[in-house]
Amino acid sequence: MINVGFIGCGAMGRDHVRRITERCSGAQVVGVYDTVTANAQQAIDDNRLDAAIYDSADALIDDPNVDAIVIASRNDVHLDPLLHTIAVGKPTFTEKPMTINGADSWKVVEAEVARGRRTIQVGFNWRFDPGYDAMKRFTASGEIGALLMSGMRHYNAQAATSYYGTDNVINDTLIHNFDMLHYLFGGDVTAIEMKFARMNSLNPNGESLREPQLAIVEFSDGALATAEANVNCQYGYDIQCRLVGESGIISLPDVATPEVRKAGQISHAISSAWFDRFIEAYDREFDRFFANIEADRQPGGQEATAWDGYVANVIADAALESLHHGGRIPVTLNEQPALYR
Amino acid sequence: MINVGFIGCGAMGRDHVRRITERCSGAQVVGVYDTVTANAQQAIDDNRLDAAIYDSADALIDDPNVDAIVIASRNDVHLDPLLHTIAVGKPTFTEKPMTINGADSWKVVEAEVARGRRTIQVGFNWRFDPGYDAMKRFTASGEIGALLMSGMRHYNAQAATSYYGTDNVINDTLIHNFDMLHYLFGGDVTAIEMKFARMNSLNPNGESLREPQLAIVEFSDGALATAEANVNCQYGYDIQCRLVGESGIISLPDVATPEVRKAGQISHAISSAWFDRFIEAYDREFDRFFANIEADRQPGGQEATAWDGYVANVIADAALESLHHGGRIPVTLNEQPALYR
Amino acid sequence: MINVGFIGCGAMGRDHVRRITERCSGAQVVGVYDTVTANAQQAIDDNRLDAAIYDSADALIDDPNVDAIVIASRNDVHLDPLLHTIAVGKPTFTEKPMTINGADSWKVVEAEVARGRRTIQVGFNWRFDPGYDAMKRFTASGEIGALLMSGMRHYNAQAATSYYGTDNVINDTLIHNFDMLHYLFGGDVTAIEMKFARMNSLNPNGESLREPQLAIVEFSDGALATAEANVNCQYGYDIQCRLVGESGIISLPDVATPEVRKAGQISHAISSAWFDRFIEAYDREFDRFFANIEADRQPGGQEATAWDGYVANVIADAALESLHHGGRIPVTLNEQPALYR
Amino acid sequence: MINVGFIGCGAMGRDHVRRITERCSGAQVVGVYDTVTANAQQAIDDNRLDAAIYDSADALIDDPNVDAIVIASRNDVHLDPLLHTIAVGKPTFTEKPMTINGADSWKVVEAEVARGRRTIQVGFNWRFDPGYDAMKRFTASGEIGALLMSGMRHYNAQAATSYYGTDNVINDTLIHNFDMLHYLFGGDVTAIEMKFARMNSLNPNGESLREPQLAIVEFSDGALATAEANVNCQYGYDIQCRLVGESGIISLPDVATPEVRKAGQISHAISSAWFDRFIEAYDREFDRFFANIEADRQPGGQEATAWDGYVANVIADAALESLHHGGRIPVTLNEQPALYR
Repeated sequence: MINVGFIGCGAMGRDHVRRITERCSGAQVVGVYDTVTANAQQAIDDNRLDAAIYDSADALIDDPNVDAIVIASRNDVHLDPLLHTIAVGKPTFTEKPMTINGADSWKVVEAEVARGRRTIQVGFNWRFDPGYDAMKRFTASGEIGALLMSGMRHYNAQAATSYYGTDNVINDTLIHNFDMLHYLFGGDVTAIEMKFARMNSLNPNGESLREPQLAIVEFSDGALATAEANVNCQYGYDIQCRLVGESGIISLPDVATPEVRKAGQISHAISSAWFDRFIEAYDREFDRFFANIEADRQPGGQEATAWDGYVANVIADAALESLHHGGRIPVTLNEQPALYR
Repeated sequence: MINVGFIGCGAMGRDHVRRITERCSGAQVVGVYDTVTANAQQAIDDNRLDAAIYDSADALIDDPNVDAIVIASRNDVHLDPLLHTIAVGKPTFTEKPMTINGADSWKVVEAEVARGRRTIQVGFNWRFDPGYDAMKRFTASGEIGALLMSGMRHYNAQAATSYYGTDNVINDTLIHNFDMLHYLFGGDVTAIEMKFARMNSLNPNGESLREPQLAIVEFSDGALATAEANVNCQYGYDIQCRLVGESGIISLPDVATPEVRKAGQISHAISSAWFDRFIEAYDREFDRFFANIEADRQPGGQEATAWDGYVANVIADAALESLHHGGRIPVTLNEQPALYR
Repeated sequence: MINVGFIGCGAMGRDHVRRITERCSGAQVVGVYDTVTANAQQAIDDNRLDAAIYDSADALIDDPNVDAIVIASRNDVHLDPLLHTIAVGKPTFTEKPMTINGADSWKVVEAEVARGRRTIQVGFNWRFDPGYDAMKRFTASGEIGALLMSGMRHYNAQAATSYYGTDNVINDTLIHNFDMLHYLFGGDVTAIEMKFARMNSLNPNGESLREPQLAIVEFSDGALATAEANVNCQYGYDIQCRLVGESGIISLPDVATPEVRKAGQISHAISSAWFDRFIEAYDREFDRFFANIEADRQPGGQEATAWDGYVANVIADAALESLHHGGRIPVTLNEQPALYR
Repeated sequence: MINVGFIGCGAMGRDHVRRITERCSGAQVVGVYDTVTANAQQAIDDNRLDAAIYDSADALIDDPNVDAIVIASRNDVHLDPLLHTIAVGKPTFTEKPMTINGADSWKVVEAEVARGRRTIQVGFNWRFDPGYDAMKRFTASGEIGALLMSGMRHYNAQAATSYYGTDNVINDTLIHNFDMLHYLFGGDVTAIEMKFARMNSLNPNGESLREPQLAIVEFSDGALATAEANVNCQYGYDIQCRLVGESGIISLPDVATPEVRKAGQISHAISSAWFDRFIEAYDREFDRFFANIEADRQPGGQEATAWDGYVANVIADAALESLHHGGRIPVTLNEQPALYR
């Protein structure tokens, strides 16, 4: 049984605690920490845990009874606990984005490299979605040759209430797409340009949350991708991805729901939210996290590593610069350490 | 230019007159007959025809200026003009069903056989629907081996206002399916059983138009088909057919309409009516009728002949017997004359 | 933690042991029994269980350390352990069919009634399939009025190697459909007729496994359903269900897989097997089984009870009679005991 | 009967001659011209026309027996006959693009304005495709609010053999998309940028036909569209368009073809070529051309006018500049004359 220390018990954090408790037979949450102690207590109560509340993330990480760490706190407070878990060598799962920018994420990479071991898995859960996984395997098999282009859509019915502004669309929404493009294409992203589409009058945030946005992403091998973010699309949670190869294309499916024929329409329900759409991906990424610990394997391949977390942040940094100042922004990565090759 | 004499100028007849006038460059309607002269006049006026109104179907058929006949009058008055056109040897298109029962249709067959030439094309237009045509060619190619089963649906939003009772579901609705089963399977139908499903409380005709109905059709080679008639289904005009072969299945497509994503639904519009759903099939069957005349070819193969019209009527006769008295009714055909082999 | 005693450790049984071990956090397998001890040992080894092997099902059931029983042995040896678990009052999950005929299943019902408590959950897992579950909720909501008809397909690429003959198609394949029809329609089945379709020359079993088969099922309220079994369809595992209501229809979706466009085709992969197609349904039915124990709830509603197991067997008995002797066979149920209302 | 003079009898021209002859009852081709007389003769022979061959386009246009002109000659020789038909006031249908650049097309606009009447219909046939037409009507109805974005795909299995180089992708392929964007969005295009994707190694033309290409199109109201050209996609002729409104999206359907389930795949055939995919659109645009003449109506609304032809050329000019020199190119239109408002 793997004893988990859990940091960050907001809504998403508590959902992960529930997931670990109910779905992951080989792991249990034994300690929790949140800056708001009531959140930590609620995680314990909701899941009837036999777990302790700690005074600090550091105390939780240091407890010898704790085997592994999960971080689901706010994006801007991931860095310190990540560096601490690396220092003590405990396997750690952190929600995405790994940190809030490329510079901070590089510190995580450097720390892992210094320790000589990959201990961080970043919560880019789309990699574990059955549809995306099938697309990765299909394109990796070479069945449609090299990838030339991609078109993605990342639509939310309404912006999350936590969205404070235009930048969230990059750091919380499109960062998933940046990771998937990096994962699916293999090659490096070399430039990005962001463009705004016409404002939606139904967007209640108005100019403070300017979108829809279009990302145009260039790869070192000439491939080209577009990703639309439309976080007030009204109609549902709609995640699409199309990969264009030399002899064919493959596209992410819609969620399977019954077909209804009524009143002149043939219709299917659309997913309403990410927690529903990607529920299986969440389960699978945690299964893998614990299976790797069990088998003493380092994350990599399908699991996003600290390097992958860094790459997504660097692309997002360039996207933000384009959003703020316009134009095509080169994406420049530090050299990839041998640890991640 | 083929000069057409047109018999029966009700709503459907006038639509065919329009079709011939607008879409069939090589043919023109030069004479019309209807028991209600106002209908005949309306066909002329609607289409700005330079055409004469005749006093009788016989006069029209006999006019040496008329090259070919189209019959779109009521089902129960097809027989006499058909026998007349055969007698004078003029190519004739008749709406389905050819006559109102197998005995009458056999007279048509005998008349053609006596003349030694196939001059009748029966308006089983589904054979010319691009989807059904693709299914026929696909299964005929042997790509999925012998046909084992079929499932069909013939749904109308509401029963046609002309439907007077339960028998219409056989003679006007399912007769299409009987012809298609005969056409698609090749083999002979040997028995049929009709069953009633639960009555739809939204059926305004109540018990006088008892349906939905289920036909269970047996073929001489052991193949088995079901066809559902549901002529008050409320939601649209929905025509489906699935053919089950030894190594795969093929199914009729829905009509292509744009996909709308709105308010939590992914939806497509359904066809509302047969004249919309099968518009291309109507055009194509008339194109073929005139092309055959032009090329001096007898109908056959894709075009339903008098024999095919007879077969559909015999199946319908058995279906009616099952509907009225219950049970599985054998379908017994006269020997197929050499003219149709 | 619920301690599970497991009876029947063949391939399917061992898969359930794995499921309980990996996916059900609140339960663990502590004891196993199989007539072939090597199977029991393999279940322990595969899942690294800390569990004992018992000499008999009875000894396992009687062990006070065992809280609940799962039966996955051969269909014909369910009865005795079921009666025993009822006698000792331990919650029991049994694979479908509950027993091999209605007479045996009635003994189970009577035993439960005598004890005055429902302790049996029958493994009709389709009820827990997300697609079927959505259909049940949709039709129960009344959105398309009363159910009039249904069309089902139950196709396997190849017959299971364990299939010894024509009867398996009823007892192992269509029994799922019988349970779902009973579950979805609510009303009682009053008659059934089985018909054979043309034999598939690719069926390696030939006449000894005669199929495809068509079931025609009648309900007390006049509703009518057809279910096709085609267990050598070659192309995949294909489960379909369409429910026809008064104002619309709802159909089970295909499994969501990426769309590929290549070589002139737009294509999706089909599920190859039941364990893949219904994996989520299996997980959910066991979750429910343990959640009911945890909450001290009796099975019922979505979970198939001993009564539901009995009903499915009685329909299957009539189907077998029709298969062997032909014709429409009335389905007559004993009065439903108050315990199940 | 409208007497048509036909200019340009290459493969596409002859197909239009056939269309007019077979499908358009109210029109007939009475005169033909082609720089290669054998082509003109073949148009006559293929369609068994009673038509004269002229020595020049001018002679054909001037013949008082000719009521209307259709131009299907090479793009670069449209201008002179267009100016001539305007001068003599004869209704004219010209294939797209109207001329080879904005400057030439402006001459056509000016000539029409000088005559005070719209006599030119440009062959942007996509406007008459049933799918596109349904999208136009749907969005015009306001059902999804203002249009914010669009994503289009214009894929050919292989580049047309007539394609001499990279610029064809703009002038012959994407020009359709430019017209549709202008038609569907209503607002003016204000800028365009072209980008190259990774070269397809299966493109037999190599660098001389550099593509896939991505167009990023900006509108005056802030709306944003992307259009991918991929003219060696190998797998089929694939035309897609998605319009994103404020409360929903609408997408062009695939062509309806039967669904086949075989060998583990659920598949539909893809259209192989434009003449198949858009056959109905071609028929409809010619129907409209002749119906307008019959009714003495000027083209406009659904029919592309000389102004629309000019707009498409101006966008294409900017696209070519971006393709050759890179970057975002403003699109500047002359003021729209009152004749077209």
